[in-house]
Amino acid sequence: MIQTLEWTEEGVRFIDQTKLPTEEVYVTSKTYQQVADAIRTMIVRGAPAIGVAAAMGIALGVRDSKAETVAGLKQDFDHICEVMGQTRPTAVNLFWAIQRMREKFERLRVRPISQIKEELIEEAKRMHAEDIAANRAMGNHGATLMPNSGGVLTHCNAGALATAGYGTALGVIRAAIEQGKKIHVYADETRPFLQGSRLTAWELMKDGIPTTVISDNMAGAMMRQGKIGAIVVGADRIAANGDVANKIGTYTVAVLAKENNIPFYVAAPISTVDLACPDGNKIPIERRNAREVSHIAGKQMVPDGVSIENPAFDVTPAKYVTAIVTERGIARAPYEESLRSLADADAKVQV
Amino acid sequence: MIQTLEWTEEGVRFIDQTKLPTEEVYVTSKTYQQVADAIRTMIVRGAPAIGVAAAMGIALGVRDSKAETVAGLKQDFDHICEVMGQTRPTAVNLFWAIQRMREKFERLRVRPISQIKEELIEEAKRMHAEDIAANRAMGNHGATLMPNSGGVLTHCNAGALATAGYGTALGVIRAAIEQGKKIHVYADETRPFLQGSRLTAWELMKDGIPTTVISDNMAGAMMRQGKIGAIVVGADRIAANGDVANKIGTYTVAVLAKENNIPFYVAAPISTVDLACPDGNKIPIERRNAREVSHIAGKQMVPDGVSIENPAFDVTPAKYVTAIVTERGIARAPYEESLRSLADADAKVQV
Repeated sequence: MIQTLEWTEEGVRFIDQTKLPTEEVYVTSKTYQQVADAIRTMIVRGAPAIGVAAAMGIALGVRDSKAETVAGLKQDFDHICEVMGQTRPTAVNLFWAIQRMREKFERLRVRPISQIKEELIEEAKRMHAEDIAANRAMGNHGATLMPNSGGVLTHCNAGALATAGYGTALGVIRAAIEQGKKIHVYADETRPFLQGSRLTAWELMKDGIPTTVISDNMAGAMMRQGKIGAIVVGADRIAANGDVANKIGTYTVAVLAKENNIPFYVAAPISTVDLACPDGNKIPIERRNAREVSHIAGKQMVPDGVSIENPAFDVTPAKYVTAIVTERGIARAPYEESLRSLADADAKVQV
Repeated sequence: MIQTLEWTEEGVRFIDQTKLPTEEVYVTSKTYQQVADAIRTMIVRGAPAIGVAAAMGIALGVRDSKAETVAGLKQDFDHICEVMGQTRPTAVNLFWAIQRMREKFERLRVRPISQIKEELIEEAKRMHAEDIAANRAMGNHGATLMPNSGGVLTHCNAGALATAGYGTALGVIRAAIEQGKKIHVYADETRPFLQGSRLTAWELMKDGIPTTVISDNMAGAMMRQGKIGAIVVGADRIAANGDVANKIGTYTVAVLAKENNIPFYVAAPISTVDLACPDGNKIPIERRNAREVSHIAGKQMVPDGVSIENPAFDVTPAKYVTAIVTERGIARAPYEESLRSLADADAKVQV
């Protein structure tokens, strides 16, 4: 099994996703600042993985705090949370994870410092395990939506590498294949960071799942040629009305799906649903460095002086989304109701 | 003015489009085989430029023929035409240019060898000049369709570098700007060959036209944000019914345009219209080497063993095309009639 990130005594160990697919290199972030850097530079990426990484980073920072009182520890804790919260703005799982660590800290305030430190580490590890369990549950729900055979398109990487393991969108595909469905994955390469060609193709290869990489602008032609029976993608934030923020290009895939009468599914844990956000217009969209577009593998592709846009995400309005798969079940329109009812459900995934 | 290709005594001189935008290098193909290689390896690309390059390659091969009889020269000529015809299958301008050289040869058969050679060179040079004139005429027609200000999106490079000069789609934009319109160009980078970031941005920069490069999967988001007032692209082949084969990704742009109520224009010379081809399904689509997708700047981006699709073109059904701009005027649906009537028109562009 792919170890996207794990807690170790030395720090948080990541597979370095900037080096894949040609180098399988692991790096250990030994301070919370290094964890924040790993998130910012996309050594680790993918909304659920970012959430777990942030929790582990907080646990690491608290563990190494020199504070001698709980009040002092709380001060350090708040600062660490602030640093983590400034890494990447779109994935709501980051803020969900910080909030969960905050609540844990509040409950532990009356305990000795050593116990607080220990229990925050346990909480972060629990979030790691719960994420995998959620993805397995999501896979079981979503597998029923997959065609019995044929092409399924995905965009970016919503796989084991985007989560603690197994994956959201790729978890749905993995579960469908475990159930005997004969799926061939079409992976958009996903410029500018190439998560599709570098990461999705790599992890599906490891599992022996047949995969074809295409450049993003080929997805439309593949759909028109009848090669795609369904689409499944992940999400970085889902608004209360079902609008979905996900990797740039997702909106395009959704429009093409509608035009070609292909179902378009989103798979994401409940922690990705932001009920406080009424619709997609309210989701902050991260703009990343122009160099990600202008330079590839160190080579300049855009002449000097030309401007560049590099939004990392776009918003797919709910009307294009056939269904949203969560670990608690499948939501369909109207999403205001279906998402709220899943979010309110007690049904906690048991680890 | 950018010299995409020109006839010289030593051979056909090209700006090497594989080296742009960081290096402005010129190469001279000294034999017709070298011209064929230049087309195949995309040192020169773009349907109209391929047509002119093929004509010059034929003229070059015939000039250097050792044949001592017209029958012998014709044999060499036929072989050269065959080699040229096997370089790239989709751009109909290639076959149009070969056919025009064939007809010229037929008319010259009674002449001495030296005159045949000289007149074929003249014919190729005439096609070069006519192409620029056609683009200027196209620009004047198409400029009226452009918005007075704001963003215009283009895909791939249908500019000076895709033609003998001035450009088709970029010719329309240039003409609109010459008329005082305040246009900001959004250029899709156009994977896998990056004609947008490397070529379109380079030639628009040279002209001081404001340009923003985006990755292909950002076009949808830009449209949804209201940044794009019109779209104009070139074409590699237009079927009698108005279906348009153009660079892979064009279909996607057209679907996004429809969804966002943005006009989608195609600019191409009459030589791109293939009345013998009833619809887009009959257009042969070139599939290029997987390495163009898997490797960028020499760096491997897709793990070994993963399959790759690399169709160089797709077909945009006529229903998505708001209008087709030619040097003889603007065609609108129903295209069967409008394209045939423009193709039949005497209105020959005067050089």
